[in-house]
Amino acid sequence: MSKKVFGVDIGGTTVKMGMFTDQGELLDKWEIPTRTEDQGKNILPDIADSIRNRMDKESLTTDDVVGIGISVPGPVDDNGIVHKCVNLGWGVFDIDEEMRKHINVPVFAGNDANAAALGEAWKGGGKGCGNVVVVTLGTGVGGGIIVNGKILSGYLGAGGEIGHIHMDDNETEKCGCGNTGCLEQYASATGIARLATRRLAADNKPSSMRSAQHMNAKVVFDAVKAGDEVAKEVAEQFGDILGKGLANVAAVTNPEMFVIGGGVSKAGEIVLDYIKKNYVRYVFHGSRETKFTLATLGNDAGIFGSAKLVLDGVAQS
Amino acid sequence: MSKKVFGVDIGGTTVKMGMFTDQGELLDKWEIPTRTEDQGKNILPDIADSIRNRMDKESLTTDDVVGIGISVPGPVDDNGIVHKCVNLGWGVFDIDEEMRKHINVPVFAGNDANAAALGEAWKGGGKGCGNVVVVTLGTGVGGGIIVNGKILSGYLGAGGEIGHIHMDDNETEKCGCGNTGCLEQYASATGIARLATRRLAADNKPSSMRSAQHMNAKVVFDAVKAGDEVAKEVAEQFGDILGKGLANVAAVTNPEMFVIGGGVSKAGEIVLDYIKKNYVRYVFHGSRETKFTLATLGNDAGIFGSAKLVLDGVAQS
Repeated sequence: MSKKVFGVDIGGTTVKMGMFTDQGELLDKWEIPTRTEDQGKNILPDIADSIRNRMDKESLTTDDVVGIGISVPGPVDDNGIVHKCVNLGWGVFDIDEEMRKHINVPVFAGNDANAAALGEAWKGGGKGCGNVVVVTLGTGVGGGIIVNGKILSGYLGAGGEIGHIHMDDNETEKCGCGNTGCLEQYASATGIARLATRRLAADNKPSSMRSAQHMNAKVVFDAVKAGDEVAKEVAEQFGDILGKGLANVAAVTNPEMFVIGGGVSKAGEIVLDYIKKNYVRYVFHGSRETKFTLATLGNDAGIFGSAKLVLDGVAQS
Repeated sequence: MSKKVFGVDIGGTTVKMGMFTDQGELLDKWEIPTRTEDQGKNILPDIADSIRNRMDKESLTTDDVVGIGISVPGPVDDNGIVHKCVNLGWGVFDIDEEMRKHINVPVFAGNDANAAALGEAWKGGGKGCGNVVVVTLGTGVGGGIIVNGKILSGYLGAGGEIGHIHMDDNETEKCGCGNTGCLEQYASATGIARLATRRLAADNKPSSMRSAQHMNAKVVFDAVKAGDEVAKEVAEQFGDILGKGLANVAAVTNPEMFVIGGGVSKAGEIVLDYIKKNYVRYVFHGSRETKFTLATLGNDAGIFGSAKLVLDGVAQS
């Protein structure tokens, strides 16, 4: 029997969990609630309980488990020290040491955006590529840079913050990070809605988007697919800014592939088309052939990436 | 007696060579001419001859030599395959295999900008830091990204091309790479001269720079130091664009330190001041504390970096 790996992805409301073979095959997945009360002190014990229950059900001992990978919504350094997770109420601590009080198997942890990127690079859209940049177009723009199969976490865990590349000196609204003109102000789901709202306010040109109850990225790309000219202008502006931003990421990291995920990417290949045609206008020739593909793991990217953290961590130690 | 490492930096007119201890101490350095005629077929034999002469002089056998590191003015992939060096007349070949015909010690090769960055990160301005971005402000803007002590060369060796980050949609002149609005059009030595010339042409405001025979970065920064207001405007523009560009590099890689080298950096700390004060205006908060320092190895960075390629390569294999 192959050994097992557990991949855990801690979110603000639920903890996603998966049991994998040591070859990275997902055998089963489930969720438990995230109990954030009392500075989140129950979260790790709850995870340990859930894994121990599962091990009992499968008649697994700790010797049958390679380790537990945990993706955390906050910075985690390369020594497994969590540096505050505001959403969970967590401070600074050694997550392996803390988990060992509850279950005696090796624990490897990483930041959630980076772990999800690692998952996509390993078993998702970037499968087979060692140098991948994963871009998640959701409420914000998340990123993860994978170099030779490993996460580029940076000196203080702030690597891959693609959403906060500065794109526009003339922006007047502030980004959530406190700066102005960040990439995610234009390329996230909320950013696209903002571009569309601005465009519609600029004149009275007819557009099906005017009848939308709530403006969002789906409204924009549905209108693009239906041939709406104003929506096409908005998609073009989105593609121009994101294509330019990713060209700059490529000048730094020269990836083999960009994997595009998150809610916005649900509109499909058309999103890639708008990014790519602008990307090639700005990119250095050495990265002109970089491929673009859609993410494939959806919400499972985090548990896959967490499992990979274990397999990489064990291979290194 | 400690083993020796040879570091070789092939330029268009001279080959710089250094003999190091296996602890990275430079024992001696010298140069030989680069013979580029006949598709550069003499370059590697000349290097091998020079090293063999040196070994004879020191009574070293091949067992006393850890290896030879070679920095090459063109792309080199992680397998040591050189992918054309136009300046040398070279095509595509395996440099270790080729050198072994002349001298039987392990050879490790890298791109010259990346090797110089590795040298600065190892023994120069970035000494002691694993995550360093080296920026060379010369005729162009060269870059090298060091992550956990290793060069980020990217999928096709086009990583660290910081000079070709797109900065300005409104630029009308072309960069050498064929794009328009690249960072090096503003932040290189020639870029600063261009900014100064443009600024002087804009009006008749008095400036000591107007009497310069040839406009260059030294003229600008000498005038800044003398309190020239127009020169300060030019330095501010340079700092704004480079600070913004490096803020974007930091959003991707979150380095511990930026090391600034090349001819422009000879003006000293004042160059860093103009970069830093603008950098903090644009950078994501996770990289706000990144340090800036001047490069210290000058033209020796390449031989140091080449020696480090050997020590890293041997440690891995």
